Amino acid sequence: MSSFFTTSYFSDILSPLFDRRADPKGKAPDSNFPDLIQQLFDAGTEAQQTRTAGAILLKYHQANQADRLGFFQHLAHAMDIDADAIATAAMAYRAQPSAKVYAALTRASEAERIRLFRLLANVRGGAKCLVKIREHVRDAMATDPGLAPLEHDLKRMLVAWFNRGFLVMRPITWQTSAQVLEKIIAYEAVHQIRDWNDLRRRLHPEDRRCYAFFHPRMPDDPIIFVEVALTSDVPNAITTLLAEDRAEPDFHDLDTAVFYSISNCHAGLAGISFGNALIKQVARDLAVELPQLRTFVTLSPLPGLSKWAKFPPQGATATRTLAAQYLLEAKRKDGSPVDPVAHFHLGNGAELHAVHADANPSDAGQKQSFGAMVNYLYDLPKVEARAEAFALEKTVAASAEVHALVKPARRGKRAKS
Amino acid sequence: MSSFFTTSYFSDILSPLFDRRADPKGKAPDSNFPDLIQQLFDAGTEAQQTRTAGAILLKYHQANQADRLGFFQHLAHAMDIDADAIATAAMAYRAQPSAKVYAALTRASEAERIRLFRLLANVRGGAKCLVKIREHVRDAMATDPGLAPLEHDLKRMLVAWFNRGFLVMRPITWQTSAQVLEKIIAYEAVHQIRDWNDLRRRLHPEDRRCYAFFHPRMPDDPIIFVEVALTSDVPNAITTLLAEDRAEPDFHDLDTAVFYSISNCHAGLAGISFGNALIKQVARDLAVELPQLRTFVTLSPLPGLSKWAKFPPQGATATRTLAAQYLLEAKRKDGSPVDPVAHFHLGNGAELHAVHADANPSDAGQKQSFGAMVNYLYDLPKVEARAEAFALEKTVAASAEVHALVKPARRGKRAKS
Amino acid sequence: MSSFFTTSYFSDILSPLFDRRADPKGKAPDSNFPDLIQQLFDAGTEAQQTRTAGAILLKYHQANQADRLGFFQHLAHAMDIDADAIATAAMAYRAQPSAKVYAALTRASEAERIRLFRLLANVRGGAKCLVKIREHVRDAMATDPGLAPLEHDLKRMLVAWFNRGFLVMRPITWQTSAQVLEKIIAYEAVHQIRDWNDLRRRLHPEDRRCYAFFHPRMPDDPIIFVEVALTSDVPNAITTLLAEDRAEPDFHDLDTAVFYSISNCHAGLAGISFGNALIKQVARDLAVELPQLRTFVTLSPLPGLSKWAKFPPQGATATRTLAAQYLLEAKRKDGSPVDPVAHFHLGNGAELHAVHADANPSDAGQKQSFGAMVNYLYDLPKVEARAEAFALEKTVAASAEVHALVKPARRGKRAKS
Amino acid sequence: MSSFFTTSYFSDILSPLFDRRADPKGKAPDSNFPDLIQQLFDAGTEAQQTRTAGAILLKYHQANQADRLGFFQHLAHAMDIDADAIATAAMAYRAQPSAKVYAALTRASEAERIRLFRLLANVRGGAKCLVKIREHVRDAMATDPGLAPLEHDLKRMLVAWFNRGFLVMRPITWQTSAQVLEKIIAYEAVHQIRDWNDLRRRLHPEDRRCYAFFHPRMPDDPIIFVEVALTSDVPNAITTLLAEDRAEPDFHDLDTAVFYSISNCHAGLAGISFGNALIKQVARDLAVELPQLRTFVTLSPLPGLSKWAKFPPQGATATRTLAAQYLLEAKRKDGSPVDPVAHFHLGNGAELHAVHADANPSDAGQKQSFGAMVNYLYDLPKVEARAEAFALEKTVAASAEVHALVKPARRGKRAKS
Repeated sequence: MSSFFTTSYFSDILSPLFDRRADPKGKAPDSNFPDLIQQLFDAGTEAQQTRTAGAILLKYHQANQADRLGFFQHLAHAMDIDADAIATAAMAYRAQPSAKVYAALTRASEAERIRLFRLLANVRGGAKCLVKIREHVRDAMATDPGLAPLEHDLKRMLVAWFNRGFLVMRPITWQTSAQVLEKIIAYEAVHQIRDWNDLRRRLHPEDRRCYAFFHPRMPDDPIIFVEVALTSDVPNAITTLLAEDRAEPDFHDLDTAVFYSISNCHAGLAGISFGNALIKQVARDLAVELPQLRTFVTLSPLPGLSKWAKFPPQGATATRTLAAQYLLEAKRKDGSPVDPVAHFHLGNGAELHAVHADANPSDAGQKQSFGAMVNYLYDLPKVEARAEAFALEKTVAASAEVHALVKPARRGKRAKS
Repeated sequence: MSSFFTTSYFSDILSPLFDRRADPKGKAPDSNFPDLIQQLFDAGTEAQQTRTAGAILLKYHQANQADRLGFFQHLAHAMDIDADAIATAAMAYRAQPSAKVYAALTRASEAERIRLFRLLANVRGGAKCLVKIREHVRDAMATDPGLAPLEHDLKRMLVAWFNRGFLVMRPITWQTSAQVLEKIIAYEAVHQIRDWNDLRRRLHPEDRRCYAFFHPRMPDDPIIFVEVALTSDVPNAITTLLAEDRAEPDFHDLDTAVFYSISNCHAGLAGISFGNALIKQVARDLAVELPQLRTFVTLSPLPGLSKWAKFPPQGATATRTLAAQYLLEAKRKDGSPVDPVAHFHLGNGAELHAVHADANPSDAGQKQSFGAMVNYLYDLPKVEARAEAFALEKTVAASAEVHALVKPARRGKRAKS
Repeated sequence: MSSFFTTSYFSDILSPLFDRRADPKGKAPDSNFPDLIQQLFDAGTEAQQTRTAGAILLKYHQANQADRLGFFQHLAHAMDIDADAIATAAMAYRAQPSAKVYAALTRASEAERIRLFRLLANVRGGAKCLVKIREHVRDAMATDPGLAPLEHDLKRMLVAWFNRGFLVMRPITWQTSAQVLEKIIAYEAVHQIRDWNDLRRRLHPEDRRCYAFFHPRMPDDPIIFVEVALTSDVPNAITTLLAEDRAEPDFHDLDTAVFYSISNCHAGLAGISFGNALIKQVARDLAVELPQLRTFVTLSPLPGLSKWAKFPPQGATATRTLAAQYLLEAKRKDGSPVDPVAHFHLGNGAELHAVHADANPSDAGQKQSFGAMVNYLYDLPKVEARAEAFALEKTVAASAEVHALVKPARRGKRAKS
Repeated sequence: MSSFFTTSYFSDILSPLFDRRADPKGKAPDSNFPDLIQQLFDAGTEAQQTRTAGAILLKYHQANQADRLGFFQHLAHAMDIDADAIATAAMAYRAQPSAKVYAALTRASEAERIRLFRLLANVRGGAKCLVKIREHVRDAMATDPGLAPLEHDLKRMLVAWFNRGFLVMRPITWQTSAQVLEKIIAYEAVHQIRDWNDLRRRLHPEDRRCYAFFHPRMPDDPIIFVEVALTSDVPNAITTLLAEDRAEPDFHDLDTAVFYSISNCHAGLAGISFGNALIKQVARDLAVELPQLRTFVTLSPLPGLSKWAKFPPQGATATRTLAAQYLLEAKRKDGSPVDPVAHFHLGNGAELHAVHADANPSDAGQKQSFGAMVNYLYDLPKVEARAEAFALEKTVAASAEVHALVKPARRGKRAKS
């Protein structure tokens, strides 16, 4: 009874048993992609549409790389817009701006493949499959740059689809479903989660938190998640933070929330930004839940440091100085920081708060940044003004401490020259 | 489990107290619409965007008709596409089909107002406001047909937004929230619900059902709903079906589900079809829940009958014959039935099953159709084939009984001629 | 949302459709109560037990007053304990304190009717029916005092059953199910709710709240509820508080929570106290949700004032003085206040804060207390100490203002004498 | 916000953060148990009661075995009933059956420790702690049989508390919380679950199910659970059923539900029966969900076979014959089967359907029953009559096949003699 009830409630969202059963293992159709697409466009009824769209998804799922590439090229070329038709329609609209002519223009302006994507997205599993398709198209662009306009359409669609307004933030706890938790283990990209026991230590006890964004069409698959530690100090090393035998703190002493890991879960959503919104909503919710929190800060990697450095620094002080220089002085053409993590947090309105040597002894940490890590501080009342200053003037907010690391270095340089 | 899930699931959607409080009464900004739109487009941060978009919605909410018309005309003209720019971009793409050029073309092809709609839709209450805006634009088109392309864009956006994939079906019962139930009372368009007691009789007991589609962005406002009576016979009059003192049937005798009222809730969603999907999902869910159900049938009005008839029929037989003729013979140019309700159910794959005289004695019923009503039968295994035949060949499936009503009439005609 | 939530959680408890259908209208069995009870005790299987217990409940439901009295007398006498058997078993246990002898003693000590109540309580609707039975037994005791031990057993059972630990507090809002809301309308005992519109004004907007306790076995029927107004001042009249055209306050100015109505819903739960726990949990939850709240206060009736007064007071000052005297000086034998509402709030640890004349112009208000009302203040940090002082020493905490009302009165009296 | 909402909703049930934080690690009080109990009984306010009860639970939690035994002995003796007082009260009631005298008698009849248990049960975690206490008392009874009356009281309380009416059945799936799932791993008593991957194979895909009963006061800790496999045949070996590489069946072929493991989770609930209700509710729910199911059957161990057998059987046929003899002929004094699993299923109304050799090659399986297993068939329409026949006459329903195994054996015996 109750299961039926829930099922009918979330009929769309929670893939009801009924449908899962329909074709448990499934067999892809024999027709090729272009024929299937034609069948889909010709379908007389919604049921037929759903069936054919499902068949295309299944065929894609079971296709090999060559078939997929063929499919992409069909989408990119045979289903591209017709530039002449657009130009003609545009001229017609200039002459007679009626609804009918406008409709013809909007139709012409949209590649046929977009109509296909919409029909696919309607089917259960369709949204997720389109995310995967974009991932594969991006891979394929390495060898076939002509797929770029196709990729552009996919991105536009996914941007609309994965609109902030549809995302739902959910805490990830030891009470979360195993189905979601096993994905957290798989997706953690910054500080690897080894197994279920390691996972538990990230979620539990009280001073460990994790939050994720979900999309209603992919309710069991997080989009992005952030891991948070509540502490009584701004941490200066990931090892201390994640130590297995760490003492449990007195809850009342916790006044700092440390965002120490943030992972995007789907390569197919590359370039669509969720992190800013997630961090801010987590900060806001934590501030309401725990009014005792005073400081919101990250413990972040410097993924580009070692590539940028000419030679490895000697000793902790040199490492910190190098890191500070890198973050303050290594710039892109547009004047913003080279380091992608710095770019992300500064763009969100954070301040470059402190740099630490000997903070990440893992192989990855040594290789990326000689073990250095950095705290970005989210000073909530100042976040918006800083984000704006960064957006408009590329201003990097940094603490006196970090500036001080660089100034003597510069003076030193000058002295030498 | 699921419980926690649902609650946290709709956390964003259910306008948390926090936000509702932010500006309990609100004061619309002094700037005019064009300036506000410019501010929105210039916003450096997401927070600023959200604030400005909210201000536009509030201003719209409090605007009078003249100001709204001014806003619509700004959208229609100042924010229309630039036909020359599109043509130029199309030619550039023909010459060089790169991602960059393609991006320029897609940007040019999309009116600036669409960007505005997207930003508005992101704000709490934005989706609902856009539905309202389309309703108002449609009204305004009566006097200003130049708004048609704007209306076209709004419809396209809402079609995407109110995609079947986002709709959730929920039963409406006496356990449903008062907030939703008062909307059911307000929206019932076919057989008026007089008050809360009358409402209860539509939902209760066991043999009365109601189901609605909801959209996650408007969780307390149904999109469309259908009222269903479970009976032991195909009913031939709405009065018997809704009689206040009807005897409660023995549950085991119920083998017929009667869809006797279906109401679209928002004029701003006109032309976007939800009824077919709703009826089919309800039929499917009821068939699973109550395997004893054998017949799925409507009791429907003939809204166009009296307009079509040359003079009122005399007596029950004449009324039935007239109704059958109307349904079988009064056609649109494309060969499909003139009657919108017939068009809807036959298009869904139903069969014209029976016509009844003296079935709706209400004023509206007499005025529309001389008190006649009709049953459309959803014969589930045949629904899809019939929908296809109707779509492709305008074939009207009708029972022998209905055909028989017309044939003698024709013969009678012939005899006279 | 929340209704769905409860449903899925309490799937077993919320009478699934399946069961409701089993016997939609039902027909009470022909056997008399004693025979049915015997059948229930003899039942070989659980299914048989459930059926027979259901039959007893149905028979009770359909019985007339005389039959019910007969049933009560059977419970009171034929199913009473056997005093001799208890005494014998007690002596046996003194002689040999084994588990077996102890079990025999516990069995003997429990009247057979308690076993019956347990079996009835297991059936869907059983708990609610026992609440009703106690209500009826209490009525019947007026003419048959010999039912008192039966009533004692029922109360003991219900005390255990409606243990605070099983009660769940839920906010009552305009989003609550109509099924619950219609009960709120029916049960409001202090300030009548006239209709659904009046109800909405008690729940909405933001500054109106309502909270109820529910028991899992009666999920659609509240046990007790309290109505709260959030205000910027301690109110001195119910009319102002409930004025239909009151101005909506600025949310940020609200610093006072006024408990202005608290209603017990079931006469069958008389003497089982829920109000203290409800008020405290509401105060605690509101304090967390709205840290701006400074004052938790009631606006309460003085139900016993006019009975206690020798003659009606003339003018507002006289009314206030009379009310203060009544509350401070009219005592029960044990030294606690005569007034039941005063007794309740002072026992909870509240302070007698202020008395008002012309505060309740309704007929009931005039008749009970010459229109006077009173504020009891819940000063959270002091509540526990005050509750203890009241419990142990009958100390009435009262503000200087209230004391001042009485002192001159006394002095006046003295002066006259 | 949303977290606050859930929290306040299930304030009692879901241990809100607020409380968990109050005393994260806790320190047991210095007072001894008798003093704490006295403080609890003397508490003037509810808040004081709650605090003291919590202190007792914490002290118990941290106590060593000797202290616990001391506590038990205090409960058993100092807090036992006073037999003389009971006898006196009983005689007083015989003389004057008033409510007051009756109340005195019921008070006397109840050991003081029961009042203590009630107060403890009210506190968060109290119910669970009492379950644990009963487990420990049962252990302690091995050396101190004088604890038996105490154990009797604990059992009576838990029987009332864990009443079927409070239990909620929930499916256990891969979407269930990790917190519950890790308990399933820990509690599985029949066929060990090795790790999370092994667990997943018990819950997934579609043809594997698991269901548990939960109590509202212990929402994250199952009471009992059953594992079910959906198959197309009655299985004859656990190895085939749980094979890691088993082929996924065609869903439409599944017509048999196999209950292959049922585990009680708490030793402190020993002797309180949940299995019958769980199996029947699962069977009923599955029958509704999957009308294609024809057969409900177990694959069960014979835990007492090897103890009963005089020597190990040689070969499969001898094993099956031995098993059949054991099940049909090895009886307790009251005539019911010796084997506890047989006793359970036959008592529920199942039929002894088939016995299999070489069905459980695990060490435990070999040791208990020479690898034999048995199917009990739940023939739903006959279940009740069979349960009754078993209850009243100890009739063992068995298939012809099982009877046939024994008859030749008997005949063989006779032939020999």
